[in-house]
Amino acid sequence: MTSTAHGYAAQASDTPLAPFSFERRDPLPGDVVIDILFCGVCHSDLHTARGEWAGTLYPCVPGHEIVGRVAATGSAVERFKVGDVVGVGCMVDSCGHCPSCRDGEEQYCETTGFTGTYNGPDPVLGGHTFGGYSNRIVVRQEFVLRVGHGEKDWAGVAPLLCAGITTYSPLKHWKVGPGQKVGIVGLGGLGHMGVKIAAAMGADVYVFSTSPSKRDDAMRLGAKDLIVSRDAEAMAAHAGSFDFILNTVAASHDLDPLLAALKRDGTMTLVGVPEHPHPSPSVGNLVFRRRALAGSLIGGIAETQEMLDFCQEHGLTADIEMIDIADINEAYERMVRSDVKYRFVIDMASLNAAA
Amino acid sequence: MTSTAHGYAAQASDTPLAPFSFERRDPLPGDVVIDILFCGVCHSDLHTARGEWAGTLYPCVPGHEIVGRVAATGSAVERFKVGDVVGVGCMVDSCGHCPSCRDGEEQYCETTGFTGTYNGPDPVLGGHTFGGYSNRIVVRQEFVLRVGHGEKDWAGVAPLLCAGITTYSPLKHWKVGPGQKVGIVGLGGLGHMGVKIAAAMGADVYVFSTSPSKRDDAMRLGAKDLIVSRDAEAMAAHAGSFDFILNTVAASHDLDPLLAALKRDGTMTLVGVPEHPHPSPSVGNLVFRRRALAGSLIGGIAETQEMLDFCQEHGLTADIEMIDIADINEAYERMVRSDVKYRFVIDMASLNAAA
Repeated sequence: MTSTAHGYAAQASDTPLAPFSFERRDPLPGDVVIDILFCGVCHSDLHTARGEWAGTLYPCVPGHEIVGRVAATGSAVERFKVGDVVGVGCMVDSCGHCPSCRDGEEQYCETTGFTGTYNGPDPVLGGHTFGGYSNRIVVRQEFVLRVGHGEKDWAGVAPLLCAGITTYSPLKHWKVGPGQKVGIVGLGGLGHMGVKIAAAMGADVYVFSTSPSKRDDAMRLGAKDLIVSRDAEAMAAHAGSFDFILNTVAASHDLDPLLAALKRDGTMTLVGVPEHPHPSPSVGNLVFRRRALAGSLIGGIAETQEMLDFCQEHGLTADIEMIDIADINEAYERMVRSDVKYRFVIDMASLNAAA
Repeated sequence: MTSTAHGYAAQASDTPLAPFSFERRDPLPGDVVIDILFCGVCHSDLHTARGEWAGTLYPCVPGHEIVGRVAATGSAVERFKVGDVVGVGCMVDSCGHCPSCRDGEEQYCETTGFTGTYNGPDPVLGGHTFGGYSNRIVVRQEFVLRVGHGEKDWAGVAPLLCAGITTYSPLKHWKVGPGQKVGIVGLGGLGHMGVKIAAAMGADVYVFSTSPSKRDDAMRLGAKDLIVSRDAEAMAAHAGSFDFILNTVAASHDLDPLLAALKRDGTMTLVGVPEHPHPSPSVGNLVFRRRALAGSLIGGIAETQEMLDFCQEHGLTADIEMIDIADINEAYERMVRSDVKYRFVIDMASLNAAA
């Protein structure tokens, strides 16, 4: 009924990640068994492993930016075959019948909530789910994505499964396209994908950052310019000019200068939930230009496939730094210092060496 | 070049309104001269007269919910003729050439800002504009509205020019219609029009209020029910169920229980600017259902005409209490205590008696 998988887990909030073995279910008729090739390292992994958000279940095997190869399929699987290269993102299940699930927006599942790839309630074995810092995962075919990129891109595809869809979904939902002026706040793992995707959608992209030193990189990634968000004069020069702003910064910050950069009817969408609230945004800034402040959470499964296909078509992957799994704790320390351009990806072949 | 008009003005922030005479321009070729019949009493009037917002210019003649009869027209006026019953709202001019003006959204004029009916820079005489607490006003024909209601309704039409359009515009912009569940927060001058208009648009309307005693009135106005916003159990029963919420409350309050009442992709739109900021809204509430918090300001001139025609077609006017202009200071005191159902309207015929 199960077989043993190997990975890295945190055993408690204050212990480093270390080798850990656990059970994966044998495939049910609709399941896909995936040998994991690469797994991106998301800030959520770190927050969860370290218990910085409420509700971490230990042992915790993080990882929800997974690219792997199909090793086996259940008897009812028709979408995938052994050898296919596939992806798994933040979700491995949802109720399937609520309005959001029926609309293909499983990330907003209104009954049980979606089942997280890690730290969610395991719907088959009980206990909780274990993520992609491991050699193998078993997932319902409905939550498995096709990867069309070539082999050299697979590592860079992994971060698309969270950072890519988290930025693609709001850019698509708010209809970003040619002729629009679009801002991306923050140039980290999410932000750098936001720049690439918004530029590929045809928009004129500007990065808002507190770090002027990131200008060259912003422009290399596809931005027209970097606007230093603490520079009141620069912000004033762009006031009232943006169609849409995607704000990827999870740290508490003043939203008002950014909202003031929006045109009439513009929206700024937040994709990060701050630990401490942002200062309360000015209602006048909203009222006097009919602006909106919104939020967005990853994206649905169909939209994730659309995003992967879009990125493949436009030659987009994440800018990554590949690491061995034995280096994951050091990588976390560097992430805390924002010392990564722009995403760590674990080469899962290193797991055998580490074991 | 000018003729003397009579009205009521505040001479300073701490003096009551009292009789005051001032000059109105003689009509330019495109101007309409209006003998004022009725003028609604808006909270903005009180805040401005008492200097509670920055920038009041004295003497201050408030009033921007005006219904009157055309007394004369400039040589180039073709839209109106002497004897027509017309309305004037919050705006008497705007730049006319910025993107918002070109889009018929003069309330968001991006160059000069719109010219307020009172306390704005007078574009012809210099100094500042004087509002509708007066016997006569002279307005560019482009900012004059046609009133189709019958004579018995004219007093109740006056508040439509601000309270009506301030609620109609966001309900229309966010596409409220049949089959939708719509919330109106606050049952005052704005809120009671929001209920009537949203119900006439075909929505199922619910009032959010801290006052359970307003339930009967809410239902009489067209609501399905009143939800006591401080009742956590009642709020939980409606969580995630609203398509749209129009929030008319300008006092600082907790937005989170109201945002939580929205469905996925729902918007709550604020039309009041609080003196003190609302507590910072929860980002999680926005992110986990892709909700939006927006603002909206009155409405454009074409949309104001559309609103008047809509109200005429559906037999809608404001619920009013008629007063003589000599009673305006007492009316202000009652407004501070929310002791009005739901709008005071000045019968301008009383001005002769008061003079």
